[in-house]
Amino acid sequence: MIKVGIVGGTGYTGVELLRILSQHPEVQIQAITSRQEAGVAVADLFPSLRGRVALKFCDPAEVALEDCAVVFFATPNGIAMQQVRSLLAAGVRVIDLAADFRIKDVAVWEKWYGMPHACPELVAEAVYGLPEIHRDRIRKARLVANPGCYPTAVQLGFLPLIEAGIVDVDHLVADVKSGVSGAGRKAEVHTLFAEASDNFKAYGVPGHRHLPEIRQGLSNMAAKPVGLTFVPHLTPMIRGIHATLYARLTTNTDLQTLFEQRYANEPFVDVLPAGSHPETRSVRGSNLCRIAVHRPQGGDTVVVLSVTDNLVKGAAGQAVQNMNLMFSLPETLAIDHAPLLP
Amino acid sequence: MIKVGIVGGTGYTGVELLRILSQHPEVQIQAITSRQEAGVAVADLFPSLRGRVALKFCDPAEVALEDCAVVFFATPNGIAMQQVRSLLAAGVRVIDLAADFRIKDVAVWEKWYGMPHACPELVAEAVYGLPEIHRDRIRKARLVANPGCYPTAVQLGFLPLIEAGIVDVDHLVADVKSGVSGAGRKAEVHTLFAEASDNFKAYGVPGHRHLPEIRQGLSNMAAKPVGLTFVPHLTPMIRGIHATLYARLTTNTDLQTLFEQRYANEPFVDVLPAGSHPETRSVRGSNLCRIAVHRPQGGDTVVVLSVTDNLVKGAAGQAVQNMNLMFSLPETLAIDHAPLLP
Amino acid sequence: MIKVGIVGGTGYTGVELLRILSQHPEVQIQAITSRQEAGVAVADLFPSLRGRVALKFCDPAEVALEDCAVVFFATPNGIAMQQVRSLLAAGVRVIDLAADFRIKDVAVWEKWYGMPHACPELVAEAVYGLPEIHRDRIRKARLVANPGCYPTAVQLGFLPLIEAGIVDVDHLVADVKSGVSGAGRKAEVHTLFAEASDNFKAYGVPGHRHLPEIRQGLSNMAAKPVGLTFVPHLTPMIRGIHATLYARLTTNTDLQTLFEQRYANEPFVDVLPAGSHPETRSVRGSNLCRIAVHRPQGGDTVVVLSVTDNLVKGAAGQAVQNMNLMFSLPETLAIDHAPLLP
Amino acid sequence: MIKVGIVGGTGYTGVELLRILSQHPEVQIQAITSRQEAGVAVADLFPSLRGRVALKFCDPAEVALEDCAVVFFATPNGIAMQQVRSLLAAGVRVIDLAADFRIKDVAVWEKWYGMPHACPELVAEAVYGLPEIHRDRIRKARLVANPGCYPTAVQLGFLPLIEAGIVDVDHLVADVKSGVSGAGRKAEVHTLFAEASDNFKAYGVPGHRHLPEIRQGLSNMAAKPVGLTFVPHLTPMIRGIHATLYARLTTNTDLQTLFEQRYANEPFVDVLPAGSHPETRSVRGSNLCRIAVHRPQGGDTVVVLSVTDNLVKGAAGQAVQNMNLMFSLPETLAIDHAPLLP
Repeated sequence: MIKVGIVGGTGYTGVELLRILSQHPEVQIQAITSRQEAGVAVADLFPSLRGRVALKFCDPAEVALEDCAVVFFATPNGIAMQQVRSLLAAGVRVIDLAADFRIKDVAVWEKWYGMPHACPELVAEAVYGLPEIHRDRIRKARLVANPGCYPTAVQLGFLPLIEAGIVDVDHLVADVKSGVSGAGRKAEVHTLFAEASDNFKAYGVPGHRHLPEIRQGLSNMAAKPVGLTFVPHLTPMIRGIHATLYARLTTNTDLQTLFEQRYANEPFVDVLPAGSHPETRSVRGSNLCRIAVHRPQGGDTVVVLSVTDNLVKGAAGQAVQNMNLMFSLPETLAIDHAPLLP
Repeated sequence: MIKVGIVGGTGYTGVELLRILSQHPEVQIQAITSRQEAGVAVADLFPSLRGRVALKFCDPAEVALEDCAVVFFATPNGIAMQQVRSLLAAGVRVIDLAADFRIKDVAVWEKWYGMPHACPELVAEAVYGLPEIHRDRIRKARLVANPGCYPTAVQLGFLPLIEAGIVDVDHLVADVKSGVSGAGRKAEVHTLFAEASDNFKAYGVPGHRHLPEIRQGLSNMAAKPVGLTFVPHLTPMIRGIHATLYARLTTNTDLQTLFEQRYANEPFVDVLPAGSHPETRSVRGSNLCRIAVHRPQGGDTVVVLSVTDNLVKGAAGQAVQNMNLMFSLPETLAIDHAPLLP
Repeated sequence: MIKVGIVGGTGYTGVELLRILSQHPEVQIQAITSRQEAGVAVADLFPSLRGRVALKFCDPAEVALEDCAVVFFATPNGIAMQQVRSLLAAGVRVIDLAADFRIKDVAVWEKWYGMPHACPELVAEAVYGLPEIHRDRIRKARLVANPGCYPTAVQLGFLPLIEAGIVDVDHLVADVKSGVSGAGRKAEVHTLFAEASDNFKAYGVPGHRHLPEIRQGLSNMAAKPVGLTFVPHLTPMIRGIHATLYARLTTNTDLQTLFEQRYANEPFVDVLPAGSHPETRSVRGSNLCRIAVHRPQGGDTVVVLSVTDNLVKGAAGQAVQNMNLMFSLPETLAIDHAPLLP
Repeated sequence: MIKVGIVGGTGYTGVELLRILSQHPEVQIQAITSRQEAGVAVADLFPSLRGRVALKFCDPAEVALEDCAVVFFATPNGIAMQQVRSLLAAGVRVIDLAADFRIKDVAVWEKWYGMPHACPELVAEAVYGLPEIHRDRIRKARLVANPGCYPTAVQLGFLPLIEAGIVDVDHLVADVKSGVSGAGRKAEVHTLFAEASDNFKAYGVPGHRHLPEIRQGLSNMAAKPVGLTFVPHLTPMIRGIHATLYARLTTNTDLQTLFEQRYANEPFVDVLPAGSHPETRSVRGSNLCRIAVHRPQGGDTVVVLSVTDNLVKGAAGQAVQNMNLMFSLPETLAIDHAPLLP
């Protein structure tokens, strides 16, 4: 059994981690910390976990995370980087679900996240936890930077096109729609039911923190800097991301075959038949990314539709996928549940 | 492996049965029939099942259900009763998720369902599939009448009170709210998104088909006819039933202890701590019924709050629970998943 | 033109008051105060009002509300009572949309609202602003206590039955469902979209602040104390209240005629034809209360279904109805818009 | 008073027309036809109109629409073109809310709508009812082709850019999201609440009927054929369209000023301040189109955000705006209500 610690488990990625890990046959959750909820039973905060998780949230100061084999950080940005150095030194492996280690250029990170980085030397070591690209490096990683929800859906959608070198990478467009859980479990007015329901809006058009993360990933695929316009939107559903991606084709190729071949061996990427339109609910509660590729009216613009559950493949599920890889377990263990539809 | 057949799997109870059974380690789905969708791959109708269910819907005329150990009917009312006699004769056990065998008084059934009953002699034999009451009889049953969604939530809520004989059973009130999936996957105007969203209404106040079913169950508990006012409502959510039950106390008892003791050994009934208010999402996708009992202001009215997922404990999950019992499997096998929250 | 002031207009009753008053032909909005948003243009906080409301929120300290003919308080409980005395002294009439003046028994008020009352002598003078009962007194009132949203729907539903003296008033049941806007525009976790969507729950079963208000109203109708069980629920819609009311009949009467006659001259109460089920959306955005009365299976239990828009007839619309009465304007002026459906 | 007839008023554009016209001070609704609902009171089908519309639906064969001054067709495609010739001959003016007269190239129309056109000679005469472009021609028109919902939001968003000649019109992208009412009030599975709620999907990527309509409009602005990729999406809200538009800038201009000047005199187009993100709810129930223009990171891609209520500015409201113009009434008469928020 792998001894697991969770830092900061009171948000939606936290409860989703608990849902998955509490059903994982090779995991024993040792501790889950929360300064604010210390002493509260997990099942009191999340009644869905009654009878499954007997732990209480504990104060970070009172728990020896060094005894864990792996620690997940489901914290706000800027927390993990304060604690990772000592955990690694103690031999603990770390998976950070926040953004602290996602961006390799520390100056860029500091600009977008508005704080100095506490351990820039570890940024270089950290492996970006997108198994479809970095599987081998993840297996050996001490520190995994779990990708953001938007970046996962966008990168998996663009990947085959950019790797194949068949699109104009200077003018990529990612029009992405997220369910409201992506904004987290913080008490804020704009995500109240009466604000976000029966409503649709874009946000962060001038610049969103996931832009540099996506741009880095796509640039790595292209082996040169890409130009990307990224527009996130809030859509009135709980879970789900739908990325609609646009690129100009520079070469004629069988796009359907290209996508099917690229993802033929990927357990969590499902390329739909030609002409399909994936729905976010078809991956609800699952670790899948479903993708369809279109070339409307045979023109030179390719349209990719990519859907994930932002809390699973976009966060907690992918984190457990990374853990499975790091501990040489079957990659799909405990994250192979069927989506919940309807 | 238990060979399973499903008749009529194109509705929401059908896809939910498929979700559960495709993850059941002791089940092999032999066939799923649908006159209308014959030849269509299950995964084309329900993309959530891509990679999990390889079957196509087949024409009922072309499949030998007699080879199955058990057949589930997820059909409209009036279908199962046409076919059960021959299946039982062939040694197949049957679980009917529709209403054909739920009501023992055939005349009552015929009045509420508006058709003559095709095999009244089997009505007497059929066991009402509420394990919390009829567990032992279900184990040996050839034919199980799986309870309706409203009846499950209401009966489990009233059960401890009526069994204990501490309420006025002549004036029970069940005010029950259902998610829209309870209306099925039929194309109808009143369940369109633009009709049912951001809206709330009662329906069927003069009389709903689940009324005689609930009244029969409660009368059995009371060992005399009960008086029940049952008002169902449509609420803008996909899954979930919330029953708010009212009864007048005739005796002073510790209600919390009464409920906890009655359900102490029930794997799928969770009595919440005193003062709780269960949410439907706390059982979403799970086979649980969560219950809280209140006595507002210490008056003589007891209020019971009972929540289920109408497609799981209210339909497909309970059907699999019954199957597990019938085949001497662990009762919770394949229906023990954690609820999906948020 | 009536000079109007609004104190505390940043919540949902505030923006709804602004929507209605900005279209009222006899009203000039002089000032709207908000300590927190002072200096912010109303249209920046509520873009729906761009081009309609040119005002900025102003600091309460910097505005002379004494120059207004009427001041609406759309504030949290406990604010209006601090300021009403001086406003009345200055000849300003006051409509309080909060609870400060709703309950005549000051000790009861202080118990449920957890604070001492600042001007108990004005509680007696205040008129409870339910025009269907107190129309004549409202016309002459200096101070109107605008009813709560639950109390409006529940009282209008029970009114004909209790006035007629044909039900057992010792055991009334009000099972009421509210849209999430009823919880206000405060940043709180339990009303986040990802918490309240696709979910249904009761709350406040042990006791809710609207219980004493409703009980007072019903007791006045009955001319003796009534017994009431009141269970509020949160339902995933923005606007709307649906009250399902249960009472035991003590006399045989033509219920349909009773209701139609009682409300024959009421511009904002619509008794539906026998057998109807009102939907909350049928009153969305309007000042109407639609009511249906049922006697299921001809038994002795009467079921009343009563729907309102909690922000209009349950708050801002009723407040303007009261203002129209107080200023001898046509009662329906500016609140006679058609509901928005779908 | 203008005598108005409505053909086919049982869908969402029909009920919205009735909501608006029943509050229009210069209109008298003479008749509303529906073959299927003939004899049914309008208020029975749409309870929101109780007390406002006293008409019954009548059989098209039994009503003399020739007596009307104007007839609205809120029918499926292909109906209006059967009846327009004789109505025009009788001196009746016609506003078609369906697609029969929107596309000037009859061959293109016949390809996308799959039927021969019944009166191609009238296609040339028909005026495309987008007042922001064709106001003067609409005033004199006998026959107005009311624009589609997607085309309205997309054309108003692109208009200033294309008129100014500052974008590459060969590679325009319109990523558009619609509420479910846009699919109409037909009983279909994919728009059921349990299918469309908590879900997001693209549809019609290979080709949607609004594509040629939008392309025609944009090409007219550009005075040459444009290249357009149009991807519509279904989002779980009742009303609202959000168009996110992408174009490559070919010239440096002050975009904010360009948009503000173009729409300075338009009563129903509201250009938001720089940096804004319009929400669909900010126009709910109103005839407004709110627009924001962005140039992310100062790059060469312009992003326009354009929101409308699909049933108002995208259908019935714009139809009444056209009627107002045709009858020399104030353009905003009866369509100047404030949006309903929340």
